[in-house]
Amino acid sequence: MNKVVLTYGTFDLFHIGHLNLLQRLKDLGDYLLVGVSTDEFNASKGKQTVVRFEDRLRIVQNIKCVDLAIPETHWEQKRGDIEKHDVSIFGMGNDWSGKFDALRDCCEVVYLPRTDDVSSTSMKKLLSVLDKTHIDELKQALGILSTIIDRFD
Amino acid sequence: MNKVVLTYGTFDLFHIGHLNLLQRLKDLGDYLLVGVSTDEFNASKGKQTVVRFEDRLRIVQNIKCVDLAIPETHWEQKRGDIEKHDVSIFGMGNDWSGKFDALRDCCEVVYLPRTDDVSSTSMKKLLSVLDKTHIDELKQALGILSTIIDRFD
Repeated sequence: MNKVVLTYGTFDLFHIGHLNLLQRLKDLGDYLLVGVSTDEFNASKGKQTVVRFEDRLRIVQNIKCVDLAIPETHWEQKRGDIEKHDVSIFGMGNDWSGKFDALRDCCEVVYLPRTDDVSSTSMKKLLSVLDKTHIDELKQALGILSTIIDRFD
Repeated sequence: MNKVVLTYGTFDLFHIGHLNLLQRLKDLGDYLLVGVSTDEFNASKGKQTVVRFEDRLRIVQNIKCVDLAIPETHWEQKRGDIEKHDVSIFGMGNDWSGKFDALRDCCEVVYLPRTDDVSSTSMKKLLSVLDKTHIDELKQALGILSTIIDRFD
């Protein structure tokens, strides 16, 4: 019988930390179901993404260890998804540790370590890119950003 | 018999344009082989990425339509890869149109349309994110960028 693992996330600007977490979750079972938060759901949380929902969903759906990606539209859908898809394990990154313990009455709940330092590594790499040859583009970008800031000030 | 399709790319900050191109290439045959340029090869072209080679390779290797991802280390490896993997079709985005016609003596060479406007769409989305609630972080970022610029000026 298939052991179904379920997780949810936004997966904006897909990176190696996302892939690591999805692969670790898949290793817990046989079938990985992923809820990808819609733009409307994110907006209700005051969160906006660089990549729109349709593209985030398609990228997650096209990762080898993911069996099915579905939209996540509201906080309360988890119990319904667990029942509908006969989920054995609900798993999230440990930045959510303890937050979903109430679901332990209907399945196993696990919190997995996130890949440390993905964001800061990227940022360091990004900063190392900024050398003399990029200074003109950077100045141009700053000009544009300053204009935007002025508009809001 | 398997029809092997080959392409090369950097695949920095994996996005929907990358996925679209890989899926269109896969549709041309049965087996998709992707050369991912190493950091050293990119450096030799004066190109630096945000995401390091190992992570770019792993993400491409974990896309469903990709059968095998290999390192691209130098310009001259194409003929060797075509022979070694019995490649039928060499395909690139049409931003490279005409650039690899010399390979027509050993396989079919195609140039496929890129997804228009992925970069500019992302940029527009990014700009739409910049509202009042983000203005403080933006100012902080500008401060950091200004400091970096001063260092080079």
